[in-house]
Amino acid sequence: MAVYTEVTDEALAAFLEEYPIGGLVAFRGIAEGVENSNFQLRTTTGDFILTLYEKRVDPADLPWFLGLMEHLAAHGITCPRPVAGRDGQALRTLCRRPAAITTFLPGVWPRVVRTEHCAPLGNALARFHLAGAGYAPTRHNALDPSGWPPLMERCRPDANSVAPGLAAELDAAQTRILAAWPHDLPRGHIHADLFPDNVFFLDGKVSGLIDFYFAATDLLAYDLAVCLNAWCFEPDFEFNVTRARAMCRAYEAVRPLSPAERDALPVLCQGAALRFALTRLYDWIHTPPGALVTRKDPMEYVHRLRFHLQAGSPGAYGL
Amino acid sequence: MAVYTEVTDEALAAFLEEYPIGGLVAFRGIAEGVENSNFQLRTTTGDFILTLYEKRVDPADLPWFLGLMEHLAAHGITCPRPVAGRDGQALRTLCRRPAAITTFLPGVWPRVVRTEHCAPLGNALARFHLAGAGYAPTRHNALDPSGWPPLMERCRPDANSVAPGLAAELDAAQTRILAAWPHDLPRGHIHADLFPDNVFFLDGKVSGLIDFYFAATDLLAYDLAVCLNAWCFEPDFEFNVTRARAMCRAYEAVRPLSPAERDALPVLCQGAALRFALTRLYDWIHTPPGALVTRKDPMEYVHRLRFHLQAGSPGAYGL
Repeated sequence: MAVYTEVTDEALAAFLEEYPIGGLVAFRGIAEGVENSNFQLRTTTGDFILTLYEKRVDPADLPWFLGLMEHLAAHGITCPRPVAGRDGQALRTLCRRPAAITTFLPGVWPRVVRTEHCAPLGNALARFHLAGAGYAPTRHNALDPSGWPPLMERCRPDANSVAPGLAAELDAAQTRILAAWPHDLPRGHIHADLFPDNVFFLDGKVSGLIDFYFAATDLLAYDLAVCLNAWCFEPDFEFNVTRARAMCRAYEAVRPLSPAERDALPVLCQGAALRFALTRLYDWIHTPPGALVTRKDPMEYVHRLRFHLQAGSPGAYGL
Repeated sequence: MAVYTEVTDEALAAFLEEYPIGGLVAFRGIAEGVENSNFQLRTTTGDFILTLYEKRVDPADLPWFLGLMEHLAAHGITCPRPVAGRDGQALRTLCRRPAAITTFLPGVWPRVVRTEHCAPLGNALARFHLAGAGYAPTRHNALDPSGWPPLMERCRPDANSVAPGLAAELDAAQTRILAAWPHDLPRGHIHADLFPDNVFFLDGKVSGLIDFYFAATDLLAYDLAVCLNAWCFEPDFEFNVTRARAMCRAYEAVRPLSPAERDALPVLCQGAALRFALTRLYDWIHTPPGALVTRKDPMEYVHRLRFHLQAGSPGAYGL
């Protein structure tokens, strides 16, 4: 669930006074999302989302995230647009947490992915990559390959209790992936977490991208690899190459991959699978039972990782 | 959190075809609520709530609940109004669960109760009691005094592990309360669960009552006793008689209590505290750690129960 902080009506009323968006009409917690507290907010002028940034988000990164969203929205990407207060500032404080109001986006995220979702997604991802080009500030991706070994260190003592032999399997995968990782591919701003619950659809088209709080400056094709992981596996972890082909073709119709990017796709997919396996494993080990957050099974990404490790070439992805 | 069942976009689209309420615009899970899955639904004609009834609600009771809401809405109570499908039916099936669409209500539930909330609440409760009078079907309150002993039986083996001596304390309280329980007070339809998260406020007035899935036909004054428990204690479990007085006076301005109801208020409050202590204790003992539902501390209601057991007279409640 996604409400960690409850906002009193008095605090909310005082907070809204700082914005030129009218009076409060309704305020409900949103179930989706695991990092921050999100509320659907209605005022006399329209609908908005109020986000309170919880401890997983570094407050120092928030101006970069909000600036990116503002830039993307101004360049044709339907994403939440930060709403400035009367003083021109979008980033404020509520209940002792950084907080921001953003615009409301229509659409529905797909609870079950179908092939028809994958081309619109590939198209939207490529447009996002092109639109991000004019946003000058950069942000290091804390979960790029340099971030995996320290995470692995903190998981290793308990990894085998999750699955026998898991520590050695992940160690071997990490060594192999780090050795093959490309460093000279085109870079730009990536979403880095474009899972189905972060993509709204309406009438078969992408109506919005949300949740930019893992966004960073990194290899553009890595973002596609994240999406291949998140959108193209069946529930039994069989890879659906039809979806992958639809996604990649639609991506390339907007932003063609270079030969080096294509060649790197298998290792980028391996890296993306390892990244999510490691963060889920970390959370699995370190989240106390009974915590408010539902732990996600790290093995879902170990299965994906195994597929990518045996996928020898870009052909495995329909390219 | 309050989304136990995920609805695919295909299932949702097919479901909405059965209603004359326009096309889908947005669909988000709602964080509030613990019994059912609730979604905020926007169509081209407006905003609605979609509820999927999960296993705690007996499907056989749903027509009674929806009928009560329809009746109340038609008699001046702002509560969710069931929306009928093209076939005239409000109760349907979605994802193999009973499901209904109801109207959206503006307002914000108070995360922190203040005295100013209590008079509007008392007023709304009394109006609800009067408006319910014309709804002929009745529903037995499964959590009335006849429901406590079986619940107590199932909690007794583990109660002392929650707090030393708790089993004996609750046994003694139950015996005392059952012996003093009134049976000839005015009866009607009660909400039975009118906690702050079920009451929306807007501009200092009650803008909506929600969540009627514990409603039943029982002693009207017992409903007031539930509210005195839910709204009139400080976080340290000190009773706030100013709030209680404001609530009762506002209630009585609409529906005066009979002398017998006033005299019974202490035992009704004891019974209400015991009812919530027992159900919370049951959930505490029987909810596995790591479950999606956040367990609520039963001791919060044991503390309240202790207050009510020593409150000798209606004067303790400001009457």
